[in-house]
Amino acid sequence: MTKTAILGYGTVGSGVAEVLCGHEESIARKADGPIQLKYICDVREFPDSPYQDRFVKDFSVIENDPEVGIVVETIGGTGVALDFTRRALKAGKSVVTSNKELVATHGYELTHLAAEHGVCYLFEASVGGGIPIIRPLTQCLAANDLLEITGILNGTTNYILTRMARAGAPFADALKEAQANGYAERDPSADVDGHDACRKICILASIAFGRHIYPDQVPTEGIRNITPTDMDYAEQSGRKIKLLGRAVLQPDGTVSAYVCPHLVDMENPLAGVEDVFNGITVKGDAIGDVMFYGKGAGKLPTASAVVADVIDLARNKEHRKAVLWEEGGPDAVSAHPMATRWYVRAQTRPEDLRKTLGGGQVLARRGIEYGETACITADSLTPEELKQRLGALQPLSVLRVLD
Amino acid sequence: MTKTAILGYGTVGSGVAEVLCGHEESIARKADGPIQLKYICDVREFPDSPYQDRFVKDFSVIENDPEVGIVVETIGGTGVALDFTRRALKAGKSVVTSNKELVATHGYELTHLAAEHGVCYLFEASVGGGIPIIRPLTQCLAANDLLEITGILNGTTNYILTRMARAGAPFADALKEAQANGYAERDPSADVDGHDACRKICILASIAFGRHIYPDQVPTEGIRNITPTDMDYAEQSGRKIKLLGRAVLQPDGTVSAYVCPHLVDMENPLAGVEDVFNGITVKGDAIGDVMFYGKGAGKLPTASAVVADVIDLARNKEHRKAVLWEEGGPDAVSAHPMATRWYVRAQTRPEDLRKTLGGGQVLARRGIEYGETACITADSLTPEELKQRLGALQPLSVLRVLD
Repeated sequence: MTKTAILGYGTVGSGVAEVLCGHEESIARKADGPIQLKYICDVREFPDSPYQDRFVKDFSVIENDPEVGIVVETIGGTGVALDFTRRALKAGKSVVTSNKELVATHGYELTHLAAEHGVCYLFEASVGGGIPIIRPLTQCLAANDLLEITGILNGTTNYILTRMARAGAPFADALKEAQANGYAERDPSADVDGHDACRKICILASIAFGRHIYPDQVPTEGIRNITPTDMDYAEQSGRKIKLLGRAVLQPDGTVSAYVCPHLVDMENPLAGVEDVFNGITVKGDAIGDVMFYGKGAGKLPTASAVVADVIDLARNKEHRKAVLWEEGGPDAVSAHPMATRWYVRAQTRPEDLRKTLGGGQVLARRGIEYGETACITADSLTPEELKQRLGALQPLSVLRVLD
Repeated sequence: MTKTAILGYGTVGSGVAEVLCGHEESIARKADGPIQLKYICDVREFPDSPYQDRFVKDFSVIENDPEVGIVVETIGGTGVALDFTRRALKAGKSVVTSNKELVATHGYELTHLAAEHGVCYLFEASVGGGIPIIRPLTQCLAANDLLEITGILNGTTNYILTRMARAGAPFADALKEAQANGYAERDPSADVDGHDACRKICILASIAFGRHIYPDQVPTEGIRNITPTDMDYAEQSGRKIKLLGRAVLQPDGTVSAYVCPHLVDMENPLAGVEDVFNGITVKGDAIGDVMFYGKGAGKLPTASAVVADVIDLARNKEHRKAVLWEEGGPDAVSAHPMATRWYVRAQTRPEDLRKTLGGGQVLARRGIEYGETACITADSLTPEELKQRLGALQPLSVLRVLD
């Protein structure tokens, strides 16, 4: 018998309770024994909850109960969640979380703290909601040297970009629609400015390449500046605009990681990832490219990923191998941002823009504005090199191209 | 130190040797100790192989060597591969395989034989080449009740269908091209008649739904009868034609499994799976739809999946939980084939075809033949119900539609 406690009875926490208690029999079969939800810790009152008798307000009840072997942290943020996670690990309890902010900023500390106390810190649900990605990275692709991870990691921005592409709507209207449909928060900054995708690429890069990459080391740009005009040029050149998080291993062993919108060729499977879905491609030296696709958020998908970690821990109590990486630092990331081709739109004539950029492909568009040109550079350039070529020219839009 | 032996030094077997010996250091780190390739068993001579000193012709050398803990079977087929697998398991060695035919026909026996002897029979590489699918099904989605698996499981036929769609080529020409490019065998029957996809859906269904589904219980139809005309109708109605293997849990607990070409809506992520790629969607009650995508065949992708299983076994020597299911039988599969909508093309007038089918959507096509009509039925029908509606009409094509 494994006993668990849930910290934080919000959307994900209540979903975890629902999945744990709604699949008791099949979970017991898979976990080699029953898993009992003993406590739910939340400071709020939930008089209508079916789990009334399990609520506690004081975390130390859970901390001091030796029967509790696994703690599920679905509080979010890096305040009380960090404190409770440290205390649970020190008390010899494994912790499972969906809290990407905590893993991205304190994952090195917490995974090592867990190992010191002979327990585990698992976080499958922190990236891609219910999409299996952490376990495939650490186990299924173990025979590969991983080279690159590129993904659509945020469902809110992907929904907004999909609406902009389909309806020709400007960003502000598509955002309002996303908010009306419950896909975006009233303060949408964490999503639309790329911070959520940034945390996720940090987690994936840390696992894949073995050193902690911190969010403040990852240049991050959101989608506020994307216009219907850029959408049109992209579509009419056989591309889509997607917000991508990327982490690419460089020949010197450092990692280039960044988040920004890209033009993606229709033939690339990431171009087919629409609406609130996520898609994550992983390149390994033996396997080539694989992609994992599904809903990246939502109560039950995320809860099912949390519960899969709980089952794994229950079934492998004494001998679950830790997921660990080394501490990061300035030398973990590349000194220079990555070179890619670029899409540049400017108020200038085609021949002038091509000359400025040192060659490239001028894009066609129906209803083109007089004197406006969009072009994709022939060369791969770092942001600095692009800036040098642009010189005095003030472009209307500049976006990376995924090749 | 874990010692292994490879049985069969063909494409996959030599790939496994290459991956094991080319990643020794990183594999040792992930497996908590080195993995040594001690023997390669093949009756042929390989004077140029770098592993010259490890070849043996007699399997009993491996069978009787207590140092060998893991045997990799990449012989293929159900003859000597079955004999050697049984003997290895009885000798207390775990077996890892990429042999889908053997797992699909003898998986129940071999997984249980392994469990009796306290070892494992693993086969991640038998479905989807290097794409992680078996481990996600058994571990990552453990908190879900699985409802359906639908996949493009064969790269050869997907390549042929992609070429037909893009070049407007007839089946015979696209097949020749696939053979010229090394994507199809000289005798292409196992691929183009759907047998390979059938074996794979049997393996996935057995794992997902808990009872062995045998290939002879799965109605299987290949792609020989697909014409450029059908391709045109599909494309002009916003669909693609894909060979799908499906296994769907029915309300009575039985499984409907079948393999045949389907019209797939462009919005479905499976429609974007082109060329030699595979894509497998899994529906769970909590997670909704997830898709796994990648190269479904090839020496190194398949070898990397084999080696991931070897690492898993090496790292969890004493306590790797078995992947097991119950014996099958006639009551494991549904008594009636599944109902879907259908695409019907016939030499008749639109109004007559709609009337015959009891309503439906008539498809438009440029360059339509006089008197020919293609229609998608309004109702979901079993094959028997469709036959009844068609009555005396002899259609030119009949294909299922994926909804």
